[in-house]
Amino acid sequence: MEQLFDYISKRIDLNKDVEKFTHSVSTIKKIKKGEILINENQIVNKTYFVMEGCLRSFVFDSREKEHTLQFALKNDWISDYIAIFNNEKSSQTIECIADSTVIEISLREGIENIFLRFPKIESIHRKNLERNIVSLQKRILNQLQLTSSDRYNIFLKQYPEIEKYAQNYHIASFLGITQQSLSRIRASFK
Amino acid sequence: MEQLFDYISKRIDLNKDVEKFTHSVSTIKKIKKGEILINENQIVNKTYFVMEGCLRSFVFDSREKEHTLQFALKNDWISDYIAIFNNEKSSQTIECIADSTVIEISLREGIENIFLRFPKIESIHRKNLERNIVSLQKRILNQLQLTSSDRYNIFLKQYPEIEKYAQNYHIASFLGITQQSLSRIRASFK
Repeated sequence: MEQLFDYISKRIDLNKDVEKFTHSVSTIKKIKKGEILINENQIVNKTYFVMEGCLRSFVFDSREKEHTLQFALKNDWISDYIAIFNNEKSSQTIECIADSTVIEISLREGIENIFLRFPKIESIHRKNLERNIVSLQKRILNQLQLTSSDRYNIFLKQYPEIEKYAQNYHIASFLGITQQSLSRIRASFK
Repeated sequence: MEQLFDYISKRIDLNKDVEKFTHSVSTIKKIKKGEILINENQIVNKTYFVMEGCLRSFVFDSREKEHTLQFALKNDWISDYIAIFNNEKSSQTIECIADSTVIEISLREGIENIFLRFPKIESIHRKNLERNIVSLQKRILNQLQLTSSDRYNIFLKQYPEIEKYAQNYHIASFLGITQQSLSRIRASFK
């Protein structure tokens, strides 16, 4: 769990109480490629911090086609926040696309309690959320104004190692293009 | 400024110190339809809480076509958060699309200081940011998986009064469709 504390302590002077308390409300999990952390239509009360590996969240549309919302790599958080925030069952599936190690933290007993006891951690988290909003806004603006080829280029810069883990249809369904278009774009780069 | 405090005090037991301090770092502005609050390529150090009216943020692409990122109505916040977070000049323009009243608060001296002095306010803001993330994630998923007609329907539910304020090209450029498509969708609903 060192890595999570390293990550946090770069941002604040972390005291031992935070570490101890976080240990008490979280679990380290090793998960294999192909395993599912959250299934569609389940109650979601946990969030995951990625220590290593890669996870992907996606939804199925009415024709069972997958659409990728997020890739989570080292030091990213992932869960179905739409379900959590709206107090609904999950609409997303979260799968492991490479052997991974994650820290699983419950939301009510874990995260909310950490914020209550250690407001400085909530402040760091607030800045993370701001970063997340900026990244989502950029993705929306890119989707509105850029060609798929430009979006693919930006995607590779944002996730330089993703092609080690992600299948073609994962990437195509993140960018909102067909696999054929993705192949054409890649071919045009050679 | 009552409205901002009403809005906050629904969420916590607001004390007079918060009100007094917020007053000291913010200004109420009345702005006319057509006025610009943030121009492209300027330094952004303020954020705006909408008391009444409607604002819109958008970018110009390389062909000078506009793409709408956000509509801000009563009780919404708006600014160029991409510029703020990345410490860049603004890429967005924020214009007033109906006569509006906003509270202008500086970021460094205002918002950050409020959070430092009153951690409870930061906690409310953290929940607002979470709501914002959920709404942006939903927009991305809708863009990936829904028809433009379904997206327009969801848009109208989310912004039931928007058609009083927004021009056709504002709405079309928010949904990522042409004005012709928007007209066809509207005609099909009659």
